[in-house]
Amino acid sequence: MISINMQEQVENSSVIRAMFEEGKRLAEIHGTENVFDFSLGNPNAEPPEEVNKAILEILKTESLMSIHGYMNNSGYEEVRAAIAESINNKFGTAFTENNIIMTVGAAGGLNVIFKTLLNPKDEVITFAPFFGEYRSYVKNYEGNLVVVPPNTIDFQPNLKEFEALITPITKAVIINSPNNPTGVIYSEETIIKLAEILREKQQEFGTDIYIISDEPYRELAYDNAEVPYLSKYYANTIIGYSFSKSLSLPGERIGYLVIPDQAADYDNIVSAANMANRILGYVNAPSLFQRVVAKCLNAKVDIDTYNRNRELLYKGLSSYGYQCIKPQGAFYMFVKAPIVSDSEFCNLAKEKNILIVPGTPFGCPGYFRIAYCVAYQTIENALPGFKALIEEVK
Amino acid sequence: MISINMQEQVENSSVIRAMFEEGKRLAEIHGTENVFDFSLGNPNAEPPEEVNKAILEILKTESLMSIHGYMNNSGYEEVRAAIAESINNKFGTAFTENNIIMTVGAAGGLNVIFKTLLNPKDEVITFAPFFGEYRSYVKNYEGNLVVVPPNTIDFQPNLKEFEALITPITKAVIINSPNNPTGVIYSEETIIKLAEILREKQQEFGTDIYIISDEPYRELAYDNAEVPYLSKYYANTIIGYSFSKSLSLPGERIGYLVIPDQAADYDNIVSAANMANRILGYVNAPSLFQRVVAKCLNAKVDIDTYNRNRELLYKGLSSYGYQCIKPQGAFYMFVKAPIVSDSEFCNLAKEKNILIVPGTPFGCPGYFRIAYCVAYQTIENALPGFKALIEEVK
Repeated sequence: MISINMQEQVENSSVIRAMFEEGKRLAEIHGTENVFDFSLGNPNAEPPEEVNKAILEILKTESLMSIHGYMNNSGYEEVRAAIAESINNKFGTAFTENNIIMTVGAAGGLNVIFKTLLNPKDEVITFAPFFGEYRSYVKNYEGNLVVVPPNTIDFQPNLKEFEALITPITKAVIINSPNNPTGVIYSEETIIKLAEILREKQQEFGTDIYIISDEPYRELAYDNAEVPYLSKYYANTIIGYSFSKSLSLPGERIGYLVIPDQAADYDNIVSAANMANRILGYVNAPSLFQRVVAKCLNAKVDIDTYNRNRELLYKGLSSYGYQCIKPQGAFYMFVKAPIVSDSEFCNLAKEKNILIVPGTPFGCPGYFRIAYCVAYQTIENALPGFKALIEEVK
Repeated sequence: MISINMQEQVENSSVIRAMFEEGKRLAEIHGTENVFDFSLGNPNAEPPEEVNKAILEILKTESLMSIHGYMNNSGYEEVRAAIAESINNKFGTAFTENNIIMTVGAAGGLNVIFKTLLNPKDEVITFAPFFGEYRSYVKNYEGNLVVVPPNTIDFQPNLKEFEALITPITKAVIINSPNNPTGVIYSEETIIKLAEILREKQQEFGTDIYIISDEPYRELAYDNAEVPYLSKYYANTIIGYSFSKSLSLPGERIGYLVIPDQAADYDNIVSAANMANRILGYVNAPSLFQRVVAKCLNAKVDIDTYNRNRELLYKGLSSYGYQCIKPQGAFYMFVKAPIVSDSEFCNLAKEKNILIVPGTPFGCPGYFRIAYCVAYQTIENALPGFKALIEEVK
């Protein structure tokens, strides 16, 4: 009785669900502490203390109606103004509250902007490896996701093949840096070239092509690495941000879109995005947490937690002979499977109670993803398994 | 550059936006206290004290990760169990956590269930007058909303015309009781007949037709009126609930779907609804507020606030000669316009600084809606204007 579209998607998702079930089953047999679950990008660093402090302060100082009530679909004006100012201070931009729309996380924001922009059959380009949910987000609005094959040398976008894939029905390019699943930060050089190509193609086709920059991992950059702010390089940029990782609030569903004045059709995009927020049933981003994040714009999770994991894991795996790029951000490591089939390798890992995800759903077969947002000890305890695995298959 | 679909919707919405702008403009000229804004269904009763108490208790007793972290797309199991139990206690049902999916408000829940059920061109029937957002929610998934003309005698559904409109591609019927915009509660007699008709048509066509019961106003019933619990009358019922009005938390976006075991294709509906929650970008209902509502299942706004408004407004308008049904629930009054054109009458009202909404967008021309979720004094001060209005046009 369910829709045909959902039938297909439910069937396709059963592989991942089967893995969750398998994880549960293994935990029952061997005990949770003996199962090493690296499958989910679920932050394990605690939210900074500013978060709960902010909640308490808001409960004390704001009226009940102003905490929990309705507001404009785009969110509280003062919250949007505070966010704009914070971005301006960090990146030298000149945004105001009129450039910010509060959203139900980045996932909500991406749906809002795709609903706003896409006509059926419009193409959205992304670079493999990529966050698999983009397939569904684009499909929700009958668009087609066009995937640029991966550049497995350094996992920077493959710009040559990208250029060849841009057509008159390319509506947007969605990028994600620091990247899930590779942890790579797209370099400034990459961004400059990407912008150049798009400007040329816009002129060639007489179209507007938007970059949608999905930035949930912006604050998780190691060794003080810079993550270029896209709107400074390309006018038709729309940024989707989330506090899920920067403040470890993934359950609260709070983020925002940045729509710069310079973006083509700015007025209509803002009107339509507000309406999309409403008619897609978000209505507005959760009100208390709008006020909370406005008070926590300088707060951040302790990134050292993730950094220690990164170092331990990278050192361990490299020493056993695994090939991978050291992640520059986020909390994922993307590793070459030492046998041809990534899914077969993930199955072998399961026998060692190690749960990892094949690269194929990210558009990059022959690799696997480790989400290292886990306890340090989990990595320590899993390393012997990783060592045994590569020895067995070599 | 925005999508054609959104272009149309933004243009159509400009009438309502124009009214908001007009309200602002009037407030600037005459002062907010002299503009009587009855246009929005924005609760003005304060959230009960249990809400903020629950937040404080949760901050004290739960770990940071358990308050703000990820959980299953359907929501915290213990929250869903508590909600199921609370429904069972009130209505003698036998739900468990497996029948409850936490959603981003009722609007989120309705989008999830339409995404789950609708194939392109599927028909969803509703009864005029109806909440105008249903048009967009159904259109989001390429369904067609079929509107049963109003029964203006008592605003119970027009069941004869309903029966004639059911076809083999009728996928669902969406009802809203207590109703926005009439305040009428669909009687048990109505529900029994409605269910009977649907069972017959299901058999005739060999299809399943779901009732989707949109229940944000369930707790706002006056004079202890009973609001029948739909799943007790019809197996293929899905209920969408929201805490926006019962706890005055419209900004927090928290609600749930009830999917009974007896609903046809229950397993697939639950799987697909969980997936729809995820891919539509809600991911999950806001986590802190899941825990909050679980602690407030017996709390309720002070409905007397709305009841006093209802009595004052109904008495006043009736005495001036306006025709309307006394609302049995919600916080809306639906009144016959004393001239033919509802929009013209609303324009005349604007000249008296009274903002009301024409019945036409609700599928019921010749009427207007008063949202009386306002200060008592606003009604007192607006009544002379309503009196003058009817005298002038008669």
